[in-house]
Amino acid sequence: MADTAPTLEDLLALHEGGKLATVSTTDLQSLEDLRRIYTPGVARVCLHLQEHPERYLDYTMAGHTVGIVTNGTAVLGLGDIGARAGMPVMEGKAVLLKTWGGVDAFPILIESRDPDVVVETVERMYHGFGAIMLEDIAAPECFAIENRLKESLPVPVFHDDQHGTAVVTLATLLHGLAREGRRAETMRVVISGAGAAGVAIAKMLRANDFGELTLCDSKGAVYPGRPAGMNPAKEEIAALTNPEGARTGSLADCLAGADIFVGVSRQGLVTQAMVRSMNDRPFVLAMANPEGEIPVEEALAAGAALAADGKMVNNALGFPGIFRGALQARATAITPEMQTAAARAIAEIAPEDDILPSFLDPAVHDAVAHAVAQAWQNHPLPKRP
Amino acid sequence: MADTAPTLEDLLALHEGGKLATVSTTDLQSLEDLRRIYTPGVARVCLHLQEHPERYLDYTMAGHTVGIVTNGTAVLGLGDIGARAGMPVMEGKAVLLKTWGGVDAFPILIESRDPDVVVETVERMYHGFGAIMLEDIAAPECFAIENRLKESLPVPVFHDDQHGTAVVTLATLLHGLAREGRRAETMRVVISGAGAAGVAIAKMLRANDFGELTLCDSKGAVYPGRPAGMNPAKEEIAALTNPEGARTGSLADCLAGADIFVGVSRQGLVTQAMVRSMNDRPFVLAMANPEGEIPVEEALAAGAALAADGKMVNNALGFPGIFRGALQARATAITPEMQTAAARAIAEIAPEDDILPSFLDPAVHDAVAHAVAQAWQNHPLPKRP
Repeated sequence: MADTAPTLEDLLALHEGGKLATVSTTDLQSLEDLRRIYTPGVARVCLHLQEHPERYLDYTMAGHTVGIVTNGTAVLGLGDIGARAGMPVMEGKAVLLKTWGGVDAFPILIESRDPDVVVETVERMYHGFGAIMLEDIAAPECFAIENRLKESLPVPVFHDDQHGTAVVTLATLLHGLAREGRRAETMRVVISGAGAAGVAIAKMLRANDFGELTLCDSKGAVYPGRPAGMNPAKEEIAALTNPEGARTGSLADCLAGADIFVGVSRQGLVTQAMVRSMNDRPFVLAMANPEGEIPVEEALAAGAALAADGKMVNNALGFPGIFRGALQARATAITPEMQTAAARAIAEIAPEDDILPSFLDPAVHDAVAHAVAQAWQNHPLPKRP
Repeated sequence: MADTAPTLEDLLALHEGGKLATVSTTDLQSLEDLRRIYTPGVARVCLHLQEHPERYLDYTMAGHTVGIVTNGTAVLGLGDIGARAGMPVMEGKAVLLKTWGGVDAFPILIESRDPDVVVETVERMYHGFGAIMLEDIAAPECFAIENRLKESLPVPVFHDDQHGTAVVTLATLLHGLAREGRRAETMRVVISGAGAAGVAIAKMLRANDFGELTLCDSKGAVYPGRPAGMNPAKEEIAALTNPEGARTGSLADCLAGADIFVGVSRQGLVTQAMVRSMNDRPFVLAMANPEGEIPVEEALAAGAALAADGKMVNNALGFPGIFRGALQARATAITPEMQTAAARAIAEIAPEDDILPSFLDPAVHDAVAHAVAQAWQNHPLPKRP
């Protein structure tokens, strides 16, 4: 794809003043307007909401607005650069949510590495939002933060780096399997990277009946009771993916004979020899940022039936429609069923001759939103007390 | 003013979906756009901000965005209805800030009556904003909340119910004095209402050399050491306004012989007889919401040279330009000098034959913004360490 790399000066000029603004959706041109949208008229709307708190999302912006929460501990592939330095990413996410999902979004920056602080702060100020997207929070803290907020908040909480990535990964694999006429159950999968994305992908593939799964980190296969480099999230995933600890070797050991490689780890970890050691016509999703575990062309040259990098398998296909669907359905969570529905919708709309549909096609985001809302309506969670 | 009162149904229909949205200020129509505003291009902007944190306000929306913080404990005249029920007011404020001030704003709702929780939450998540407007927080907690945040945050913190009201009150009085050819120093002033607005007005008039000031609450004159109904804010103000406790009687006692009445208390507290007991050609600002301490026509009929209510003396003349000026100047506070400059700018632009200029006139907000920015440049506070 021809793409003249912009200079830093170009990028800074483009980012001058940021990328997001707020805008009034009501008229304010006369004293009469003022008296309706502000005092005294607005007081009657406030009293109505006091009497009918269940109408809150109907008469405020919260019903269509996502809070994008970060503490900046894992911004893109840049690491712990802090929430403020990560703000351009949050604004970018908000632009994507608005442009492709048609929902409003606003960044919330919490400059703290302490998961307790992040959780408590969001619990105190989530009320302006109909949903919370967690973004660029490092593993393993991101798992506890998400779980605790899911438990305590009555609105959807979704860590895009985990589940958004998992949705688009599953979509890519489902579409690839359909094209190849193969079944998920027969696939042995190796995932490289035990951070936010790797763990979520493993859970999602497990829930969707893929065959044997192995998760590898920098120390090789993750297995129950491994002596070093474990944490609660890895222990949980080891029990799900590699229960007897049958696989204990390096990434290269695990890849031999596997059908699918999913990389969310580091540039250059996979060689052509490792791809050749896989089963026939393997799938190679080398999605490390900014450069994949192996270049797509090299994977294809080594026999991959399907190869893609992180630019192709992009979360932006998922989260705009996922949030729109959840907000439209007034869902109180984004359930695994909704995530699977999103992945299937993306896979179904993908062109026969391509890996995924283009996120520039509004039909994708419409299809995702529709599928997600439908999945909530089919399997809603019980109301909170 | 002819004004057909809208029905509740009209108002609810107008508020459907709220009154505020977010909008992208950048193009997102191609893959190339995506790679500039999102990965990989955005990463270079993030790294630039990590190296140059002093450029944060230049390359993010924070530089032109106000956080409107409320806990909903004193929404309009409705009392403690909670932050969510107050959301339509916060959205309304954001609409005014955008439409008249040209600055972006977003509501932050903190459902807690505990000042420590409000302060700590704002301290943790103010980074997305270039300024904080506190709104509809009850006295006396609002004073401590504002003071603590002013101390701890490097961006302006401004409680509009206090200082916005004080600015527009001062503007009204300065314009009235100019019209009448009288001097502030010779004016004896009685303020009714020792909440957020009353205390701020007292301080502002004291700083602007008005004559003897007395603040009254429901127990009459506030004086040092008064046995009942005091709090730290009232003790402070008693020492400033009525230092020897010379005035200890009721509101009616205090008004006899006074030149100016400023009401930010309750409907119907002032009678025509009380206005007649004041000095010649008194000023009567009866600004209680939704109905004043005395109707304007009655005050005029009882001899007032100037009479106005809260609809006429409206904060909306002040805060949009104040925040624009402060953000444009990259001020780290909204100082008393900036507030006085705003009041003078409003008074100077007011028509000879009216109490105040119209807030529908963009020239007012431009003049306020310019005066506020200039006042900061003339008297900036020292940089924080």
